[in-house]
Amino acid sequence: MASIPSTPLLANELDIVIPTIRNLDFLEMWRPFFQPYHLIIVQDGDPTKTIRVPEGFDYELHNRNHVESLLGKRASCISFKDSACRCYGFLVSKKKYIYTIDDDCFVAKNPTGEDINALEQHIKNLLTPSTPHFFNTLYDPYRDGADFVRGYPFSLREGVPTAVSHGLWLNIPDYDAPTQLVKPHERNTRYVDAVMTVPKGTLFPMCGMNLAFDRELIGPAMYFGLMGHGQPIGRYDDMWAGWCVKVICDHLNLGVKTGLPYIWHSKASNPFVNLKKEYNGIFWQEEIIPFFQSVVLPKECTTVQKCYLALAEKVKEKLGSVDPYFTKLAEGMTTWIEAWDAHNPSSEATGSLSNGLAKVNLGK
Amino acid sequence: MASIPSTPLLANELDIVIPTIRNLDFLEMWRPFFQPYHLIIVQDGDPTKTIRVPEGFDYELHNRNHVESLLGKRASCISFKDSACRCYGFLVSKKKYIYTIDDDCFVAKNPTGEDINALEQHIKNLLTPSTPHFFNTLYDPYRDGADFVRGYPFSLREGVPTAVSHGLWLNIPDYDAPTQLVKPHERNTRYVDAVMTVPKGTLFPMCGMNLAFDRELIGPAMYFGLMGHGQPIGRYDDMWAGWCVKVICDHLNLGVKTGLPYIWHSKASNPFVNLKKEYNGIFWQEEIIPFFQSVVLPKECTTVQKCYLALAEKVKEKLGSVDPYFTKLAEGMTTWIEAWDAHNPSSEATGSLSNGLAKVNLGK
Repeated sequence: MASIPSTPLLANELDIVIPTIRNLDFLEMWRPFFQPYHLIIVQDGDPTKTIRVPEGFDYELHNRNHVESLLGKRASCISFKDSACRCYGFLVSKKKYIYTIDDDCFVAKNPTGEDINALEQHIKNLLTPSTPHFFNTLYDPYRDGADFVRGYPFSLREGVPTAVSHGLWLNIPDYDAPTQLVKPHERNTRYVDAVMTVPKGTLFPMCGMNLAFDRELIGPAMYFGLMGHGQPIGRYDDMWAGWCVKVICDHLNLGVKTGLPYIWHSKASNPFVNLKKEYNGIFWQEEIIPFFQSVVLPKECTTVQKCYLALAEKVKEKLGSVDPYFTKLAEGMTTWIEAWDAHNPSSEATGSLSNGLAKVNLGK
Repeated sequence: MASIPSTPLLANELDIVIPTIRNLDFLEMWRPFFQPYHLIIVQDGDPTKTIRVPEGFDYELHNRNHVESLLGKRASCISFKDSACRCYGFLVSKKKYIYTIDDDCFVAKNPTGEDINALEQHIKNLLTPSTPHFFNTLYDPYRDGADFVRGYPFSLREGVPTAVSHGLWLNIPDYDAPTQLVKPHERNTRYVDAVMTVPKGTLFPMCGMNLAFDRELIGPAMYFGLMGHGQPIGRYDDMWAGWCVKVICDHLNLGVKTGLPYIWHSKASNPFVNLKKEYNGIFWQEEIIPFFQSVVLPKECTTVQKCYLALAEKVKEKLGSVDPYFTKLAEGMTTWIEAWDAHNPSSEATGSLSNGLAKVNLGK
């Protein structure tokens, strides 16, 4: 796992999406792992600023001017001055798989001191099934040296296609502002050697720092909402996407995995700034979570797009009374799907129940 | 974690229950950890056989004659010639907590080579809350160095009382006979440094090899069914208990944790013998699992006993048509509760929603 693969997996089928406001020197450390892949850089903030990308990488760079020019009035659904803008990169990609990473994330080491090839682990997670219907106590049964334990129904051992692989972070944990303030010195030093499926019916806090997904299976649901400039909330972009994605995966019988791989998260963001961005979210999530825990999508919703539009309708209906923001967000969700379909004309059939597992030899 | 605690936790509040048919030499290895505790040894098989217990342990030993004499005609609910008989030990205990372990389980070592004090970890798991309502991606938020991640609703951070701590096994994994036959040489060598809550609504395969629970919170549901002698099934005793326990914990807002601690499971049982015991279970579980996944307990069931009797009724009603065995099992479940209440007269109020967390300083 920790070595540089001689043949990079899915090099022509995966884009790496990086939202940024600064020079991408962090890519130097990732060079052995990322260089075979195409990068989509989404430049946030001032579009006249020049972002430096280290030489030798294959990339395209989109700034706000590109967003506006490509999407026209629909550009309103793409956040500005917030890493939520990363979902624009998902929309313009033409590949089957996406890996997205923050520019303050570096290569972590496993307990034996080797560099972790995060992308390779994500790809393994995505190319093996998930097991959302029953818990396996030895974690991912498809890993080498593991299997389904006694008492695991045989009819469930084929699993379901994996749509999302959620990776974790060593060093700076992904805490909210109150926890950052209370525990300024806490570092995540525990390397948990596990990948697991988040069970059906269970929501989880999806972090966008180190995240991979199958764009064909779940892409249209990977909308990071309206955050940052002009909005009453920030730092809930990935959370919002995660709640929507999980509910839709559960409905469409797709899997979400979390655990390995780790990246090294280098720097804690400012907890005071974060508190200002988060406080509405901390308050609102007490009503958002029960909403997502109880929402039921109609049976007719057989594609991600249909699910997402139905969800937008329910957000407006049920959360609109919490704050007018949610009515605007529901509109943003609808606009996002219009924009997605306009630029991904053949994707209307995505997210169907057909098995989306690629036929790639993982050497198992 | 790995050292012998100077003050053993809960020494007067926990019994160790060991079902066995042989001399208990395995206790020698556990002496530093188990000697401060009271042991309840449940001797299975021929009651005239003498079981040798190493000197210095505080124990009581019950054989089939004791079972018959204490329970009278209700002894029919206690399995014979199957480790399912262990639940008799849970019934006769007068303590708040139980740890049960198989006699082929030895002290495992953690990755730094230290002996793992399994009991201490179980106690820590039981004395800290569980989080069944929302998934925490950094696993148990109550462990040192961990917390709730961004996006975790604050209203859910108090958690719920933990009823069960399910530990794992290094070396021989807990596989069913078909998997044993297909992978005779597979060993579990992966030490996953995690404890986690099994989410609400998700069933898991509970193994009885290395298991601790709060007897006051969930004891009456820890019935290991009718297995072994005279029954058409074996090796599903702990699975049956686990499914019942999980459904009742979900109903009563109690938590189930799995993960650490590991024990060293020394010897694989014979897969051919196992297949003979298991084949009905492998077949039946395809109908048992959907039953447990969909069963709903009435709101009036506010104690474990009431829940368990309601569940017995539903087992008879819904699984009786699968095989007459389930009608007999449902009767065994009812008899078990009668026996439990007869010998635990003050326990009728157990499993109520009151917070059952003991006030013990875990040094955190």
